[in-house]
Amino acid sequence: MKKTALIIIDMQNDFVLQNAPQCIVGAEAIVPNIQKVLTFFRSKNLPIFHVYREYREDGSDIEKTRLDDFLTQQKYCVPHTKGCEIIDALTPIEGEYKIVKNRFSGFMQTELDFILRRLDIEKIVVCGIQYPNCIRATIFDGVALGYEVTLITDATEAQTEEIATANIVDIANIGVECITTKLFMNKKEKL
Amino acid sequence: MKKTALIIIDMQNDFVLQNAPQCIVGAEAIVPNIQKVLTFFRSKNLPIFHVYREYREDGSDIEKTRLDDFLTQQKYCVPHTKGCEIIDALTPIEGEYKIVKNRFSGFMQTELDFILRRLDIEKIVVCGIQYPNCIRATIFDGVALGYEVTLITDATEAQTEEIATANIVDIANIGVECITTKLFMNKKEKL
Repeated sequence: MKKTALIIIDMQNDFVLQNAPQCIVGAEAIVPNIQKVLTFFRSKNLPIFHVYREYREDGSDIEKTRLDDFLTQQKYCVPHTKGCEIIDALTPIEGEYKIVKNRFSGFMQTELDFILRRLDIEKIVVCGIQYPNCIRATIFDGVALGYEVTLITDATEAQTEEIATANIVDIANIGVECITTKLFMNKKEKL
Repeated sequence: MKKTALIIIDMQNDFVLQNAPQCIVGAEAIVPNIQKVLTFFRSKNLPIFHVYREYREDGSDIEKTRLDDFLTQQKYCVPHTKGCEIIDALTPIEGEYKIVKNRFSGFMQTELDFILRRLDIEKIVVCGIQYPNCIRATIFDGVALGYEVTLITDATEAQTEEIATANIVDIANIGVECITTKLFMNKKEKL
């Protein structure tokens, strides 16, 4: 059986809470589905990765296209702030991995692939926010690096339904299994 | 004038202090030279990067060749331990960058290059420990990525003089300026 890990992306206060500086519409609505998947992985003692953003306060590590707004408007995902923390409903527990990223892909210039390889992970299950950026970049890199990838479609969000749908089409087209939480929970015994 | 940054590598208690689990012979002896260079960069308000090791306690992010010893003997560079901290004499101050690495090169799967580029750094000055591993790997990657590199030879150490000398030969041969602290301090006005 292929060893599987869960990757939850960017479910931080600054992106999820209503009125957060960078609120993703609908991010709160997917929390119950992510919790279902998370609870299952915890029950099976399978590896769980919380991959999330941090940006230094001087903006030195943020994407160039976001730099001006970050410096002149409200900052977000600054380490040691409440906004940077993963939301209470998904707080990591001991034994779960926290991976800080500065870019869209969870694999870019992070230790994620080091650890997945060390744990002999062959398959990753991805959810979180948001479809066109961090979800998609992480999934494409995951496929490129040789992982089998499953996307939980209703435990993942975008700013609009159209964007989500268009991304799922592209992601499915490179061979990623795109299934709902319900379907995942029904077939989860295979993990 | 080319903008220059200082990179100090792995000057952590677990590598530097006598009787530390992974003590590098002679690491303490180079501290005064590193301090001279550090003080100069601080006086000029030039960017300073403290690049250092962290290993998760479960060993999931340590090099494969070090894994068995790490798990069965004394652990080192575990986050939030005293041993993992940068030595008191070189403690980072506000505005200086701390970059965590899990491998030999300070550039491998870290945000170091993101930030150097953002700051328009063209030249890096490297010192710390130790020659054959982290110093060399960081310098070779730095050259490969297009930075001009200066190595401060007597602010850098190895386990033996022979290893240090052999590495300096190889490093000089790829076009890296290898100079002593004294020579660097005498020509520092060019920065």
